[in-house]
Amino acid sequence: MRLSGSISFESLSSVSKRPVESFPPRVATLTPIFNNSGAIIDTCIVTFFPGPASYTAEDVVEISCHGNPIIVSSILSVFLEIGLRLADPGEFTKRSFLNGKLDLVQAESVAQRISSKSVRASELTNRAFSGELSDRLDSLRNDIISILSACEHGLDISEEDFNEDFNINSLLTINNISSKCKLFLEGFDENRYYISGARVVISGKPNVGKSTLFNALIGTDRAITSERPGTTRDYIEAELTIKGVPVQLFDTAGLRESFDVVEQEGVRRALSVKKNCDLLLEVHDVVEYIEPTKQIIHILNKSDLHNMDDIPKDLSGFFIISAKNGEGLGALKSAIFSALTGRASSYVDVSLITKRQADSMACCHHHTLNAASFFKEGLPEYELVSFELREAIKQIDVILGATYPDDILSKIFDEFCVGK
Amino acid sequence: MRLSGSISFESLSSVSKRPVESFPPRVATLTPIFNNSGAIIDTCIVTFFPGPASYTAEDVVEISCHGNPIIVSSILSVFLEIGLRLADPGEFTKRSFLNGKLDLVQAESVAQRISSKSVRASELTNRAFSGELSDRLDSLRNDIISILSACEHGLDISEEDFNEDFNINSLLTINNISSKCKLFLEGFDENRYYISGARVVISGKPNVGKSTLFNALIGTDRAITSERPGTTRDYIEAELTIKGVPVQLFDTAGLRESFDVVEQEGVRRALSVKKNCDLLLEVHDVVEYIEPTKQIIHILNKSDLHNMDDIPKDLSGFFIISAKNGEGLGALKSAIFSALTGRASSYVDVSLITKRQADSMACCHHHTLNAASFFKEGLPEYELVSFELREAIKQIDVILGATYPDDILSKIFDEFCVGK
Repeated sequence: MRLSGSISFESLSSVSKRPVESFPPRVATLTPIFNNSGAIIDTCIVTFFPGPASYTAEDVVEISCHGNPIIVSSILSVFLEIGLRLADPGEFTKRSFLNGKLDLVQAESVAQRISSKSVRASELTNRAFSGELSDRLDSLRNDIISILSACEHGLDISEEDFNEDFNINSLLTINNISSKCKLFLEGFDENRYYISGARVVISGKPNVGKSTLFNALIGTDRAITSERPGTTRDYIEAELTIKGVPVQLFDTAGLRESFDVVEQEGVRRALSVKKNCDLLLEVHDVVEYIEPTKQIIHILNKSDLHNMDDIPKDLSGFFIISAKNGEGLGALKSAIFSALTGRASSYVDVSLITKRQADSMACCHHHTLNAASFFKEGLPEYELVSFELREAIKQIDVILGATYPDDILSKIFDEFCVGK
Repeated sequence: MRLSGSISFESLSSVSKRPVESFPPRVATLTPIFNNSGAIIDTCIVTFFPGPASYTAEDVVEISCHGNPIIVSSILSVFLEIGLRLADPGEFTKRSFLNGKLDLVQAESVAQRISSKSVRASELTNRAFSGELSDRLDSLRNDIISILSACEHGLDISEEDFNEDFNINSLLTINNISSKCKLFLEGFDENRYYISGARVVISGKPNVGKSTLFNALIGTDRAITSERPGTTRDYIEAELTIKGVPVQLFDTAGLRESFDVVEQEGVRRALSVKKNCDLLLEVHDVVEYIEPTKQIIHILNKSDLHNMDDIPKDLSGFFIISAKNGEGLGALKSAIFSALTGRASSYVDVSLITKRQADSMACCHHHTLNAASFFKEGLPEYELVSFELREAIKQIDVILGATYPDDILSKIFDEFCVGK
């Protein structure tokens, strides 16, 4: 539990009934914490971090009690009663940002770092937290500023003085910048589910073997399976890792029209779970017309029962498996992995880590493409080029938090856990 | 993360690539921790607690990293690679006990304190941790020793010298000790589920409204309900608190003979969940013969549908409710509370907190009753009285850990979370 702000130190003194001198800066000190009736809630280790050498740059008190929610909430109550308030979500990190200890990329990395569910996510968020990602973005920003300066210089002198070499070199430079933007975006696509985890939903008609596939993928007998259509009603979820990518897997009721009200309700819930998924595993019993998209993997189950000669030869777009005996499961896992990581083979060591960053980078990329397009028409309008490059820079500033629209901070920090 | 033992300090120095002098005792120090390849895993706050003024009485290093399992396991790997090993479950507290910092009641309270799910559990485990419970047990032990000394004195002199007054007073004293033992046992019965939480299972024939009751008790629409028998198949669980008692509630498939393999499997799982419960809520649709026991609450559901005149008058032993419209739910919750707290009205401020302690106290109680019984037969055999009192003292020593059978420590500490 952490307190931040000017009265945090005297508050500690009050609930521990000890003078402030008993808590030398940064020294772990054992002390009881009392409730209003004078009873000991818990005996805690507390440490006082005077600002500005603290996380928020303000006076911070850290309290380590026994790890139990009831104890934590009792201690919390005591502090609330003497006038402290609960931190807003992300408020500690927000204060750290506003007090200049972290840029916005570093601040965002804190929440991502805590929620990261894979080793790669932990590595990438650490590079963002340490400032490496910010340095790369700064370097990209500097590249754009250089070419922008050159173009602005062009605005001041007559256009005839620009030679063709300048234009060719400028185009090359801007193309190079565009490529770098694109690499940032590709890196994010490859890594986003390592960082946030993916919701993968098993769907399909009744009795195609969805629950058997669910059990086979998680490796335990969690869902009841049977020969009978409509076995699963309440949806079931489980967590697993596929080649390092954290996956939350859902088994749902088979989709069909039914007069059975229970089954109807199961289907309604199945459709609701499907709506919010990152990847759909659509299970089929017989080959049907399919429209392949990146977000769906079509699975032809029960290869153990099918006579493959009876099946039309065009099975492209289908993964043929037997959830029952495990045939094709390895290939299916690879396909799930590829779908979630953009079939990436490259390995980036520094990546954007949030959708907000990627959205701004996509805008930045777009503006650099616009800027390049002017050069392709021969003698460009430097004012237009300059405008696009300025817009590109603005987007990087948004990523780093050098400038930010009024609502962006609350959007970012509202997603933090309370008080971090 | 905590390290304990003679090499913990040099291990910290090794993974942080800093000399030991950088970590003054008890001072929170910011440092990166490196992996084998020299990359930073995380930047952490570490504190060195030199023994014997530490939790285990050995040199202890405490590491606070960003709160994420992946980061924790990466840092763990680095320490394992340089020769440290994972602590056994409860090993820190076990060492604290073996090094004389805590008695066994205090040591047990640590695990109970961390897992406690109610305010009362937190208060009771704190009183055990602080030594108040041990003091009460010590005082009981001293009472027994006093009367034992008197009886042993009796062994040395001729039995005729004992007068009737002595015997009457001794019997009063032993009865008083017995009453104290009984109070300890009653206090535990009242409080055990506050401390450990209770597993409560809803059971009954198909279509008696089990899932509707489940939803009504937890207050959300978690389980699918319908008019049709056999709706629930996979069991469902949810946590709630009933008048301060933490309850894990299970909804199960309706019990009947069925040719449906899915339903059969659901019934099999329902029976398995029933087996391990602390309290059964048996739901009925019509009045059946029941055998009331403390562990079962019989519920007559669907009071909204029943014409009460059609129902035989003898409804004693049944709780009449309508899970659908909420009628009788308050009374049912009170009944669940009473069943789990022994219908207790008294409030004890210090209570035994583990079944182990209660089992030993029951033996202790038994021996004091035996001792008292000898006095009731007129002139007692003081040797037999003395034997029983000695056995009673032994049981208190077992509770406090003054003496312990070889296997008792591993039994106790194996139930701790790893490393606590």
